[in-house]
Amino acid sequence: MILEARGEEEVKGEWRRRGRGGAFGFGRSVAGEGLLFPPSNFGMVDRGIYRCGFPAPDNLPFVDALGLRSVVYLCQEPYPDVNAEFVRSRGIRLFQFGIEGSKEPFVTIPKDTIMDALRVLLDIRNHPILIHCKRGKHRTGCLVGCFRKLQRWCLSSVFEEYLRYAGDKARISDLQFVEMFDVSCMMQSIHGIIYRYHGCGPQGGRLVYRQEDG
Amino acid sequence: MILEARGEEEVKGEWRRRGRGGAFGFGRSVAGEGLLFPPSNFGMVDRGIYRCGFPAPDNLPFVDALGLRSVVYLCQEPYPDVNAEFVRSRGIRLFQFGIEGSKEPFVTIPKDTIMDALRVLLDIRNHPILIHCKRGKHRTGCLVGCFRKLQRWCLSSVFEEYLRYAGDKARISDLQFVEMFDVSCMMQSIHGIIYRYHGCGPQGGRLVYRQEDG
Repeated sequence: MILEARGEEEVKGEWRRRGRGGAFGFGRSVAGEGLLFPPSNFGMVDRGIYRCGFPAPDNLPFVDALGLRSVVYLCQEPYPDVNAEFVRSRGIRLFQFGIEGSKEPFVTIPKDTIMDALRVLLDIRNHPILIHCKRGKHRTGCLVGCFRKLQRWCLSSVFEEYLRYAGDKARISDLQFVEMFDVSCMMQSIHGIIYRYHGCGPQGGRLVYRQEDG
Repeated sequence: MILEARGEEEVKGEWRRRGRGGAFGFGRSVAGEGLLFPPSNFGMVDRGIYRCGFPAPDNLPFVDALGLRSVVYLCQEPYPDVNAEFVRSRGIRLFQFGIEGSKEPFVTIPKDTIMDALRVLLDIRNHPILIHCKRGKHRTGCLVGCFRKLQRWCLSSVFEEYLRYAGDKARISDLQFVEMFDVSCMMQSIHGIIYRYHGCGPQGGRLVYRQEDG
């Protein structure tokens, strides 16, 4: 969304490729349109990965500006009609991984469900992607925490980030889940995703990481 | 930093262009290297824009992986030798905007300094860019808050983000500064940046916003 001057041809090409608005609405600001209302607890996890609480109808213009390809929805409840219609009309793919939201000590984060959600999250064909639950604190925090462990963040930094979003609603059971989550169980899946993506088996694929653009 | 399989030529080309590691160290994880230690209060503001508290020596491998072009440093104190040597050796440009860090009610955020810092922040030639002060809460929070206003975020979301990073150290004077900051004073600067970037005057430049990649 950063301001940038470019040749007209390049801009046209980009519109052809993406066909939707940029993230964060900065261009809209310059165009003098109205305010944008991000969902509660909105944040950028990484390039092409966002997180937040449940997007209310007022938040949808902002979410629209993210140009999403996918949503990871971590609640058991069906998606409300207005949100379902929003993702349908934008061609956004909805991945629902229903995790119970009841309070500790009765809540258990299901490891297999988090692994399934991580597989979706890691697959760049699904980016830009938005992760959300109800408050963007516990279920979303657990998923992002496991993602950070995959990125080799030290546990204290993973917890600091979890706590920043959870605030005084932080749950020790979530932190324990993230601490106990064994990232090695994901490695086979990661290779599977990469190689399926190119459909060319271990010899044809190459495991690299995408660089940040300048 | 997202895992992605690509042809070898493409990868080589990217290494030639960038010559440094990707952000967040995900590739390092797969390569089995050790843990990464993000600076305190680290977060991603937007594509190519990061924020944090003061990076300690232990944090520098993580910061290195961001592949920064620039740092915006918001304290008055000189940069410590180890940090100065780090940015020098990586060819990272250091923009220091010294803002006093004393506690309210004696602190006043200087508007002109924030505007100068915003001009650096908005110029994509400086990206990827890291904003930091000492704790990544007050001075950094004010700068990011003004940036969000430029992005047309509603004030309640700007404040929510400020509070998330400032926690119980939040300052009402910072919130008042951000609220009172008149973004229209930046509009002329933004156009100036864009057109200087291409060096071709208002006829030759085109004001667009950069799209998120998929």
